[in-house]
This record gives sequence, C-alpha cells and structure tokens, in this order.
Amino acid sequence: MKLKFETQKITYKDSFTLYSGREIQSCEVAFETYGQLNKEKSNGILICHALTGDQFCSGINPLTKKKGWWDILIGPGKIIDTNIFFVICSNVLGGCMGSTGPSTVDPKTGKQYGLNFPVITISDMVKLQVKLINSLGIKKLFAVIGGSMGGMQTLEWASRFEKKVNAVIPIASSYRHSAQNIAFHEIGRQAIMADTNWKSGNYYGSKQKPKRGLAVARMIAHITYLSESALQRKFGRNLQNSKNFSFNFITDFQIESYLKYQGSSFVERFDSNSYLYITKAMDYFDLSFRKGGLTNAFKNNDLSFCFFSFTSDWLFPTSETKTIIKSLNTSNAKVSFVEVKSDKGHDAFLLDEPEFHEILGGFIEGQIIKQGI
Amino acid sequence: MKLKFETQKITYKDSFTLYSGREIQSCEVAFETYGQLNKEKSNGILICHALTGDQFCSGINPLTKKKGWWDILIGPGKIIDTNIFFVICSNVLGGCMGSTGPSTVDPKTGKQYGLNFPVITISDMVKLQVKLINSLGIKKLFAVIGGSMGGMQTLEWASRFEKKVNAVIPIASSYRHSAQNIAFHEIGRQAIMADTNWKSGNYYGSKQKPKRGLAVARMIAHITYLSESALQRKFGRNLQNSKNFSFNFITDFQIESYLKYQGSSFVERFDSNSYLYITKAMDYFDLSFRKGGLTNAFKNNDLSFCFFSFTSDWLFPTSETKTIIKSLNTSNAKVSFVEVKSDKGHDAFLLDEPEFHEILGGFIEGQIIKQGI
Repeated sequence: MKLKFETQKITYKDSFTLYSGREIQSCEVAFETYGQLNKEKSNGILICHALTGDQFCSGINPLTKKKGWWDILIGPGKIIDTNIFFVICSNVLGGCMGSTGPSTVDPKTGKQYGLNFPVITISDMVKLQVKLINSLGIKKLFAVIGGSMGGMQTLEWASRFEKKVNAVIPIASSYRHSAQNIAFHEIGRQAIMADTNWKSGNYYGSKQKPKRGLAVARMIAHITYLSESALQRKFGRNLQNSKNFSFNFITDFQIESYLKYQGSSFVERFDSNSYLYITKAMDYFDLSFRKGGLTNAFKNNDLSFCFFSFTSDWLFPTSETKTIIKSLNTSNAKVSFVEVKSDKGHDAFLLDEPEFHEILGGFIEGQIIKQGI
Repeated sequence: MKLKFETQKITYKDSFTLYSGREIQSCEVAFETYGQLNKEKSNGILICHALTGDQFCSGINPLTKKKGWWDILIGPGKIIDTNIFFVICSNVLGGCMGSTGPSTVDPKTGKQYGLNFPVITISDMVKLQVKLINSLGIKKLFAVIGGSMGGMQTLEWASRFEKKVNAVIPIASSYRHSAQNIAFHEIGRQAIMADTNWKSGNYYGSKQKPKRGLAVARMIAHITYLSESALQRKFGRNLQNSKNFSFNFITDFQIESYLKYQGSSFVERFDSNSYLYITKAMDYFDLSFRKGGLTNAFKNNDLSFCFFSFTSDWLFPTSETKTIIKSLNTSNAKVSFVEVKSDKGHDAFLLDEPEFHEILGGFIEGQIIKQGI
C-alpha cells in the first residue's frame, strides 16, 4: 500500500490465521510510538483506536494536518504522560492507514484485495496487536486503553491475553454490538454498496471513488455519536445562511451543513471497503456468545479494570457496561467504574471532559504505584 | 398523474398559493371516504397521514393489497366507527398517491415537475385539506386526528383553522422538528440525491429509478420509528440463516434482513422526489417560530385537545408534547394528555396498543355527547 505519509511498519512473513480460518500472507501493521520504552519494558501503554481512528493518537496527524484524535490526553505532561510512558498505537487490521486491509495489494494476485479481503473480527485485530507488542519486546503492558471499538479491543485483551497486560481501561464501549447498532452499521454499508462507483469493491483503479455512499454512511454514524441534547444545544433549528427558509434542497439548517461537512471531509481520509470490514468486525463482536458466556470471558485473571461510560451516550449506554461489571463482580475481579455526567453523547470520550480525564489520571497514578514503574 | 388504482379526486382550477409565495395550477387532491356524512354534516372526521402514509387508512390498500395503515382503528364498529362517522383521508400535497406532487405533470410544461415542483410546507398541506373539506360541504369537522406528521397537521388545523373543527387529536408528534430529526431526514435526502439514478430529480422518463438511495433513506428512518428495546426484543443478535457468521457482506443478522425488506418493499410504493419534499415540509414545521411563539399559536380557541405520546418514542418524545401542553394551559384550553407506556417506539401509534385505543375511544365518546351527534 502506497502511503502519502510516514509511519512505522512491521511486516510478518509468516501466515496470519484469522478467526474465520482464512489466512493473510505478509500481514503488515502500521503504528506510531510516543515516549521511550524503559529498561524494564514495563511502561508500555497500548492505545486502541475506534472505527474511523488511526495510529496518530497524539501530535499532528500527517494526513489531515490536524491534532491526533486523542492528543488532548496523550503527550508530554498530559494524563497519559509520554515522559513516563511508552505509548503504542497501531492502525487496526482491515484499516486504511498502513495496516493490511482491503486496499492492500494481495501478494498472490498483485492487485488490491477489495472484497477478496477476508472478513475480520475484533479478535483478529487484537491478535495483530499482540504480534506487534511481542515484536517491540514487551512481555506485559502497563495498560491497554481504548474507547468505542477501541474498548472492544481492550476487552478482547482482557479475555484472551490477560497475562500480557496489567490494567485494562474500556471507555464508552460494550461486550457486544446491540441490534440498533448493527442496524445503523448495516445502513451505512448499504449506502456504500448502493453507490455505483463502489463497483462491488473494485474501485481502486478507478478515478471515481464511492465517496457519496461513504459520506452518507459517515453522516448516519455521526448522528449516533452525538446526543439529542448536544445537537439541540449546538444547532437547534438555526438556519445556515439566511433569515428565512431557502425553499430548495441545498442547505437550510446549520445541522445539515455540519453533517455534510462531516461526510465530505471524512471521504478524503477513509477507504469505503475498510468501512465495510471494520463495521462488520464490530457487529460480530459479542463476548457473551462465546463458550461459558460473559462470566467465563474474564475468569481467572488478575487484571485491574477501570470502566468509563457517559450518561448521554445512546450508542453504548451505561447499561451495557453495567452488564460486564456484574459478570466481573461474580469473578471477584478488581473493577472500577465511573459513569461520567455529560451531554456530549458517545463522542464525549474524545472531547474535553474534565471529570473523565481527572478520574482516568487518578487510576493511572494508582497503577504507577501498584506496578512500581 | 396516471394511477394504477382507483381513488376519489378533486381538481381546483383556481391557482393555489403556497406559503413560499409560489403557485400551483390545477391542484389536485386525492382522497378516500369511509361511512356516510349525516344530514347536519356534523360527523366528519379528518384523518391526517404520516410521512409515508396515504389516503387508504381503512380497508384494503389497492396498491399494496394490504390492510390500510390505520385499519386497526378505523372501520365499522371500530374505535373510529364508520357506522357513526364520515371519515375523510386525503393524500398530502407533495405526495405520490394522486394528490399533486413532484411526480405530477406540470400543466405549463406537459412534463412531470421533478424538482421544479415548489417546496411545500405543512401549512400548504392543511390548506389543501381545508379546500377539500369545503368541497365536501362540511363547515365544521367533528375532529382532526393524526400521528407523527399527521399530528403536525392537526396542530396546524388548531392554530389556523380553529373555527372549522371541534376536537383535535395529535398523536406522537410535536410543534416543531428537532435538530436530530432534521439530521435524520437530511441524511435520507442525501442518500436519495447520491443515487446516480436520481438525475437531479429527472428520473420519471427513465427505466432506472433511484431505488437504492430511497431504500437507504427508508432504512434510516425505520430505525428511528422503533425503540432500542423493541429492536433488541424482536431481533437481538439473532442470525438470519445459519448458526455461525457468514463472513461476507450479504446478510448475517435478522435485523439486517428486516431492514432490507423494509427498504425494498417501500421503493415499490413511494416516489423519491415526494420523499424529499415531504421530509422538507416536516423539517420546516415549527409553530413556535411564528409571531408570538407557541402560546400565540393556539390562543382564543374553543377546541378540545387530546394528546398522546409513547414512553419509548425517541423521535417525538413526550417532552415535546409537554411543551405544547404548557402553552395551551396558559391559554386555558381544554386539554387532555396521555403518555402511553409502550416499548414499541414511535411506530406504537400505528400498532395494537390497547391503552391508547381505549383512551382514544373514551375521548371520542365524550365528544359525541358534547357535540351531540
């Protein structure tokens, strides 16, 4: 995959077997690191990104030229202090920022995978992260932290790789994707596949990309990231340009203009097929579906958990987090849980939420003492 | 407009002036009636349909061959008893079931309007209903009843034509469309306009209709009609065909299959341009925006109101109805209000909800005594 920006990469020459049984040859992981790994290799924090995130969680994103998606939290002197920690963030398997995904050239055919790319799961994403952590020489992470789909990955770490991490911080997330969430994702996928430029996923050689379908998908998702009250507060029924209605189908309301901007800016940085694959991986995620159910998913571990949810998050409501907590409590796990009062909806985990940041900072400080780094 | 079914129609030869100032020539209204108008012409009930509804509120819809959308409530011996009442239901202005809309032939050009059709408002829809009621010789309606967009129309009747109706029954509705609701509509419109078969609205002569875009729009809207708990109860994470994931992009979950069915069946009976115009009319609706605000909208009237909302309706939540009630209370209006406990979401107003039906029946019985029919 040719990239328009620099990032670190590791290619694994051995065959990478997926949850589905299919295999990927020469699997690549693109990642960024911030701070220095200490001698004991005990200060590694893995950051897991959400559906449309990437490895540029701190500093400036070289593609968008904007601040990284969690720059508010990660950097020198910040809550996740890169003067203390070695922060690793990798682009997920299936992504479009350098890790192997549908836009990668299939070494077997010499052509970009498109829909020949195998369907992946959250498990597969985490499996590639584990390989990366091994490659970096880290035996046990200080913590794994992530919001939304990133939170799903943290739970997968807790469930399958509990010996390789000390603390797990799932934020605004769940142990499974609900029917409503699957529904929103499916409509996003339908919007992409309805775009005639999508061409069954074979658009890479074409000048015309399925941008309109992807923009619609992004707009649908974007509504679910915000709360009704945040939308009302930020936009209400305010008109965009005039004092009266336009009486046409261009743009009347500020909310329309905002959504169009969200859609059109997104398509410049994201691949439509990656959107299909990653949403599917989220839809498939269900820790309670596995043998022994949710209680079994976390048994026999010595992890410290710190969960966060946000009151106005209707995509991953607090009730979902509480279900996990109940299961963990039955297995005597060390669990902290904070429901942060916010009217910013699901997106709150990415925004300036002082209460969230303060408590997260407190938990990390406690872990520094406990883990002795 | 050529129709594949029979319906009653009236054409108004005089020019029909819209809220925007634009005019429609030879405006037509398509409607159905059920029951007999009494000698005093005092038993007329106008039923106002929702976004994707039509005039076939009772009996069998000749296009879909299914029961009319409110057949559960309207018919001989039913809550809205056609042995007692003369029920009128007309297709809204801008619709595609016989009333003038974007798929109608413009008498000036001899071609179908498409996007040359003027943007309409809820006020314009009601203005055409008033013309129809006048044509039927009815001076004052027994009641105007409607849910969702139909409820907006009932409020418009209460606000502007309060001398022409005795009782107003707005159900699962609001005095204005919220930012979130506008957002969902705008994305639906974007999905239609992103379909290359839409051709800026000029698809009527073409074999290819913008069905894929319209199906996506319908699917988006459909999620908002259901509650999260109803989706979870009806579908949860149940798989459609197999015991394991398909690992492709066809259909895994029952919820996906259900939504696709909703999308594909809808496009057979609805016009994409009508969808654009009617959603826009809903977005524009805001009684509080008018001079004097919401309190002024209903002043000096002698109407009896009966409002219904449903606990799990997140499209038109109870809080919206309560705002109207507050305004009405300050003007000493006769207001009943019932919040019906239901987990069926916005769609509850169309479904078998015994509490809703019982209370509605009670209100109508009270009005029969009061109005003396």
